[in-house]
Order: sequence, then C-alpha cells, then structure tokens
Amino acid sequence: MKKIILLFSLSLFLSCNTSTNKEPEAKQTNNTEKQQDSVANFGIVIHGGAGTILKENMSDSLEQEYKAKLEEAIKVGHKILANGGTAIEAVQRTINIMENSPLFNAGKGAVFTNEGKNELDASIMDGQTLNAGAVSGVTTVKNPINLAWEVMGNSEHVMLSGKGAEQFAKERGLEIVDPGYFYTENRFKSLERLKAKNTKKTELDHDGKTAFVDPFIKDSKFGTVGCAALDKNGNLAAGTSTGGMTNKKWGRIGDAPIIGAGTYANNKTAAISATGWGEFFIRGVVAYDISALMEYKKMSLAQAAKEVIQKKNPELGGSGGIIAIDHQGNVSMEFNTAGMYRAKMNKNGKLEIGIYKN
Amino acid sequence: MKKIILLFSLSLFLSCNTSTNKEPEAKQTNNTEKQQDSVANFGIVIHGGAGTILKENMSDSLEQEYKAKLEEAIKVGHKILANGGTAIEAVQRTINIMENSPLFNAGKGAVFTNEGKNELDASIMDGQTLNAGAVSGVTTVKNPINLAWEVMGNSEHVMLSGKGAEQFAKERGLEIVDPGYFYTENRFKSLERLKAKNTKKTELDHDGKTAFVDPFIKDSKFGTVGCAALDKNGNLAAGTSTGGMTNKKWGRIGDAPIIGAGTYANNKTAAISATGWGEFFIRGVVAYDISALMEYKKMSLAQAAKEVIQKKNPELGGSGGIIAIDHQGNVSMEFNTAGMYRAKMNKNGKLEIGIYKN
Repeated sequence: MKKIILLFSLSLFLSCNTSTNKEPEAKQTNNTEKQQDSVANFGIVIHGGAGTILKENMSDSLEQEYKAKLEEAIKVGHKILANGGTAIEAVQRTINIMENSPLFNAGKGAVFTNEGKNELDASIMDGQTLNAGAVSGVTTVKNPINLAWEVMGNSEHVMLSGKGAEQFAKERGLEIVDPGYFYTENRFKSLERLKAKNTKKTELDHDGKTAFVDPFIKDSKFGTVGCAALDKNGNLAAGTSTGGMTNKKWGRIGDAPIIGAGTYANNKTAAISATGWGEFFIRGVVAYDISALMEYKKMSLAQAAKEVIQKKNPELGGSGGIIAIDHQGNVSMEFNTAGMYRAKMNKNGKLEIGIYKN
Repeated sequence: MKKIILLFSLSLFLSCNTSTNKEPEAKQTNNTEKQQDSVANFGIVIHGGAGTILKENMSDSLEQEYKAKLEEAIKVGHKILANGGTAIEAVQRTINIMENSPLFNAGKGAVFTNEGKNELDASIMDGQTLNAGAVSGVTTVKNPINLAWEVMGNSEHVMLSGKGAEQFAKERGLEIVDPGYFYTENRFKSLERLKAKNTKKTELDHDGKTAFVDPFIKDSKFGTVGCAALDKNGNLAAGTSTGGMTNKKWGRIGDAPIIGAGTYANNKTAAISATGWGEFFIRGVVAYDISALMEYKKMSLAQAAKEVIQKKNPELGGSGGIIAIDHQGNVSMEFNTAGMYRAKMNKNGKLEIGIYKN
C-alpha cells in the first residue's frame, strides 16, 4: 500500500510541477483574493524553534535575517500548495530551506554533541494515510527530513537510526555530505561554553539543574524547525527536523523523531510539529495529545493547543511550543517560552511572521 | 525533581526489601483471601509477545516451558507488590525474568538483525510522575529494561541509543555482557531462514509483501515482553523489552522503546505495554491512545483496549496486542493475532495464564 501511496504522491508532485511555471505571486491583489475565496482551503505554518528569545538579546540585522529566512521557507511550501501540490511535499521542501540555513538548529547549523559531532533527527507524517517516517542520530545526510520521507515511502519501517539509517540514505540516493558540512562556528562555541559550565556542574553536583538548564534553554532550543500544511485536497502533513541539544551525550534522542511526541498528522484533526525541551514532549506525547483532545473531547485546535502547551506541559516541568494547522485551515502557534520563530500563510497569501510574544 | 523521585523510589524499594523476608505465598487460602479484600488493591499483568501462535505448531513440552516461565516471572512482580513494593520495581524485576529466558525475544533470546547482531530496545514509565526512560539499539547490556530505568532515574533524558546508551550503562554500573551472550541457536536459524526467503523477495519485488510479512509474523513477533502493574499505593507502571524484528536492517527502531507507542503509564488511566508489528503501533500511538480514550472519552480500560486493538490497529493494517492494568486494578489482555503469551495475577493471588485465543 505504501508504494501505491508513494506513486500517488509522486504523480501529484509531477502534476504540480507541470503547473509550477505559472509562478503565481504569493501575495494577491484584492480582486484575486475574492476569486480565491472559492478555491479549496489550504495553508501552511512553520517554526524555527522556541526558547528564551528576547528582543534585548537580538540585533536588528539578525532579526531581519531570521524573518527573511522564515519568509523564504514558508513561501516555498505555499507555492507548492497553491499549485495543487501535496501537503507532505510542501512540508518537506519548506523544511529543506531551514535545514540548509545556519540560523536554525537543523541540518547546516545543527548544534554539537558532547563529542563535538552533529547528530541529526527528523520525522514526517502524512495525515491522510497515517504513514510516517523518522530518523535519529544521522551525521552525513544533508537533509534529514528527506531521509524521513524516504523511510516513510520506501521502507517497511517507520524509524531508522544511526549508521543503518545512513546506509539506507545512500541506497536511496540521497545527498550525502562530509560530517564537516554541519560545522558552524557559533554552534561550536556554544558547545565550548556549555562544556566549560559543565566542569563547574561536576563540582556543584547538587546544583546541577542550574548549570544544565540555563545554557540549554539559551542555546539549544533556538533552532528545531518544523512545518505543518493543509493542501487543496484536504490532506494534512507535518514534519520536524533538529540537531537536538547542545552537548547531548549517550546517543540522546529527543522528541523530534518520535511520532506522537514531536510530529503528528491526522486528516481527522490536525497536523502538528513541536519544539522545546524534548524530554517533556515525549513524556506528554504532546503532538498526539493535541489531536486526541480534538478528536475525543471535540476541542478546537486552539483550545487543544492551549490546554497542552499552556497547562499540561508547564505542569510537567517542560517548556516549548507547537505549530499546527487543522483540517479546516485554522492555525495555531502556541508557545510557553519567551519566543518562538514562526510564520503562517493562508490560501490568500496573507503572511504573518513572529519571533517574540505578542 | 527526578532525583527526589528516585530517592523516593529507592526508599520505597528499601522499605519493601525489609519486609521481603516474610515471603507470603502468592496463592492464598480462602480465609486469607477474605482478609485481603480489605487490603489496598494491586495487580500485575504480563505478555511475552503476540503473533501466529497456534496450538498445532506447539509441542506440549514447549507449551509447558512457556507457561512455567510466565508464572515464574509474574510471581516475582506479584511478591514485590504484595510486600508493598512499587509498581515500577515489580515491572522491572518481572521483565528481568523474561529477558533472562531464551524463550522470549528480549535480552537472552533476542532475534538477530540482518547483520547477525542482537540489538535490544526497552522502555519503562512511571504513572505517578509520568517519568519515563527508554533505550534503543544496545548490544552489550544484559537487561535493557534496567538501563531504561536508569535513564529514567539517573539522567536528564528519556531516550538514549546505541553506543552512547551502552557508555551510560557502564557509567551506571549495569551488568555488561559480551554480545555473544545473546546468541541462541533457534533465533540464528530464524535469521538464516528469513535471509534465504529474502533472496526470493529480491527476485519478486512486486510480491514483496508476502515474502516479508509471512516469516516476520511467524518468527519475530513471538517474543517482545512487557509488564504493567498497580501497587498498593495506587501507582501504575509499565515496561517493554524486545529484540525487535528478525533480519531488521538500517538501525530500525520499533515501538517498544517509544513512549506512547509501546509503553505508557498514567495514574489517571492505566499502564499499558504493547507487542506486535511495531510500525503500526508507532503510527497509531497505541499505548497512549488507550489512555486518551479512557481520559477523554471516559471509556473503561476494556472498551478502550478493544477499540484500539480490535478496530483501529487492524484498520491501519497492523496486528498485535496489549496488556494493561487500570488505576482500579482492572486488567486487559487484548490481541488481534492468533495468540499472545500472557498472564495476570490479582491481589488475591489468583493467577491466569494464556497462550491462544480462548
């Protein structure tokens, strides 16, 4: 069945590509907006990570860089959707833009592990079929979200890890890079800063929480990326890609590659991608919990997202946020941190970008 | 907070150990049964895997071996609970018995990967705190469930993987074995049989499903082990341990180490451990879905387990089962396969063991 779905997706992609040449502008005139009201609903929403993102710590030029990259990324997905492409294709291509930017903790720009490596995780889910793919701990695959998509479409599995996942990536012909590709000076300095603090932590073990949490919040949650989309056929998809935590050890896996925690999509409810302190998102089964509240308690997406992110997640001790879109095109960008890089775009091309709390 | 919980768990464990000397018999006389009706409710349930387990394929002596081992395992956990020990301790110790037996696909007796290795996954969750621990792809840790418990209690993480997880196991002083410890002749022959069939699969790629599914069902689902328990303090816990799929490749991770899919526990609802075709259990977020149906739709455990295992899981294309116990001590052992190795034991010591469908 997976193969049939893949062929179907590919044919949609191809038919979408044939119409790509028209290249409609994302932002429409008023007249065109009126015309589009009769067009099937679609929309897209993205995040670039949540954490202690404060205006006083951000230069104007860096803020502009983030906003420009968020806009570039979301417009790629929006164009695919506008041309009749699939939600899952839009999710993948949008995430690629953020993975390829050093601004975000995913792909190029991923944070460093304790051993000074970049180990990448990603997952993707199709709300129509509940098919899903995920990878953890890959070090040589340029775009982990593409590998997650390959796992979904071209393996009997949902989740692959480490060297084995890299072998599968090679067999599928994905772009392989030298691990050095992922090096960025900023992220490496973050590791060095954190390691210096960790020495202190060993001396003050009882005070470990302060030493652990502070730099983690300030550095590591700044960049997980994610996308959720609704296409013109009413299909939902979500994806998440990350480098995880700076200074992570012991092959730590966070919520990003966990279906139900970091990523979930179901045409009945919504497509959701999470970002934040991964351990608490796993324990709270955050992405699926939002879907379950919608399906079983008949909450709206906004209510469900608020319940999980503003109540359940902080009560457990966690922090972070989600972006989501439901089957009617309603969007949520809910977070309990100081900021979350985020953007949304509806069928009329109306674009909203945010970084801090409103 | 984790440290406080750990100390609390340890103190409960120690207080339980001091009373262990009483060693009450699990099966009580009628008089004692009446006395125990006033004792706080507790109970335990286990599985040793679900799949095409048919009486005509099973010798009487092998059937007796399975039953004896299930009884031995569940009585270990029941005794801990009867003596006032914690649910999570009961889960861990019970699973250890099954991990140490070559009868089950977990620990000693784990199936082989395509590369001829044994890669083990496990997870555990505490329903009181929603704390959880999980490991994937470990090859040298004798009891992976103990490592999952260490991750939960003694790291800032929920999930560790591969070599990193093994390093953490060493640092925590867990029992490390040579990978050869996990070798069993039966499992190795299963790999050889499946590899022979896989050659055929390559020739008949369009017919891959038959070649893939048949030996997978017959061999690989026979042995994931799991346990769920309710202790006298009203706390729930669940755990799962497995060697995964025979002939698995590319660092495949199944549902067993995924919190929400293979394992979930919440004092509000139930403790659940799953076994079956892992990919479908991940996509269905099976263990958490049962909890969500109970919490949000006010279903009983029996209703929720039936909905998920008899309806949602087969509709998605999956197969397998779950064992679960709710906060009132009600037990479910629901499966959609021909059989599931299983046992349950209530506070009065009433023991029920099953293999095939009733």
